[in-house]
Amino acid sequence: MQYPEPIAKLIDSYLRLPGIGEKTATRLAFFTIDMQQEDVDQFAAALRNAKRELHYCSICGNITETDPCQICRDHSRDQSKIIVVEQAKDVMSLEKMREYHGLYHVLQGVLSPMEGKGPDDLNITSLIKRLQNHDQIKEIIVATNATPEGEATAMYLARLLKPAGIKVTRLAHGLAVGSDIEYADEMTLFKAIEGRQEI
Amino acid sequence: MQYPEPIAKLIDSYLRLPGIGEKTATRLAFFTIDMQQEDVDQFAAALRNAKRELHYCSICGNITETDPCQICRDHSRDQSKIIVVEQAKDVMSLEKMREYHGLYHVLQGVLSPMEGKGPDDLNITSLIKRLQNHDQIKEIIVATNATPEGEATAMYLARLLKPAGIKVTRLAHGLAVGSDIEYADEMTLFKAIEGRQEI
Repeated sequence: MQYPEPIAKLIDSYLRLPGIGEKTATRLAFFTIDMQQEDVDQFAAALRNAKRELHYCSICGNITETDPCQICRDHSRDQSKIIVVEQAKDVMSLEKMREYHGLYHVLQGVLSPMEGKGPDDLNITSLIKRLQNHDQIKEIIVATNATPEGEATAMYLARLLKPAGIKVTRLAHGLAVGSDIEYADEMTLFKAIEGRQEI
Repeated sequence: MQYPEPIAKLIDSYLRLPGIGEKTATRLAFFTIDMQQEDVDQFAAALRNAKRELHYCSICGNITETDPCQICRDHSRDQSKIIVVEQAKDVMSLEKMREYHGLYHVLQGVLSPMEGKGPDDLNITSLIKRLQNHDQIKEIIVATNATPEGEATAMYLARLLKPAGIKVTRLAHGLAVGSDIEYADEMTLFKAIEGRQEI
């Protein structure tokens, strides 16, 4: 005996999501059947709408309903700095901080020879175009992840942009606030010592 | 800055699923935006259809597209035995075994004073009705989970049905096939010794 077709199809859809295996997909599918009709309809509508109404900003590559995005349209923001991130999610994380008022650029990925991702697969051409068209940009702050791929991408961007006379900086490495030295890995400790500051 | 509304709504929908927290919901929502339009449409349709086309079988409480369900309609099955399970998923697990050819009854829950679930919240009345209407039912095999709630529900059913002269049995407890004694908990070992069989 097999699952009735409607539930088999739903399990299959849940299975396509990242990090969701067969057991979880089955559990979610059965949970869905017990949900309120209204909530299920809302879920289905949210899926369709998110896909249909969201686009990438033609300037910075962030996810947005309008083009250009809210940040690129806001001329009260500091037009001299651009933080370069891997993903649109990272923009949200940095905005939550409420301390940065410059612009962003979303690469939509990182350099990853393992996955066959080269510079042409990233949103780099549009970054160069921004720099050429806007003299007021003085600093590129590379905020890619502290992973080997993120580091490689940061180095690539530094080498690409520095010859044009643009200041390229990288987020500091070190101990996370609130973390114990006991549990920090060696690379983090090394970076924390290397980047030590006078108090 | 907030997430654009379409993505905030989608994150909210994912958050309603069990075992999915804010980080995972956000990750799934951003993943959805990068999915193929076709796959998203399929997902949305699967959600609506699963909710609309599936119902509970009026006889056994299993999830089904047709009423009565495939199993209840199959008169070639052994009409003398009913396995009582907590959830529709459990029917599928038992059917995968391909060794049981009797009927099922889905309680749609277990007795749980902690969650305020009493006998009236379970699909028990319809089980009694089945027993009253069908003389050929000789045995009720209680296959609730081996949890305190599952055990309590099994005891409750035994006390309820035995006076009517129906044989009530319970799945055996013991070591899982392929498991090590070293890692078995004390209760399981106790049950395995208690239920030992001559070889």
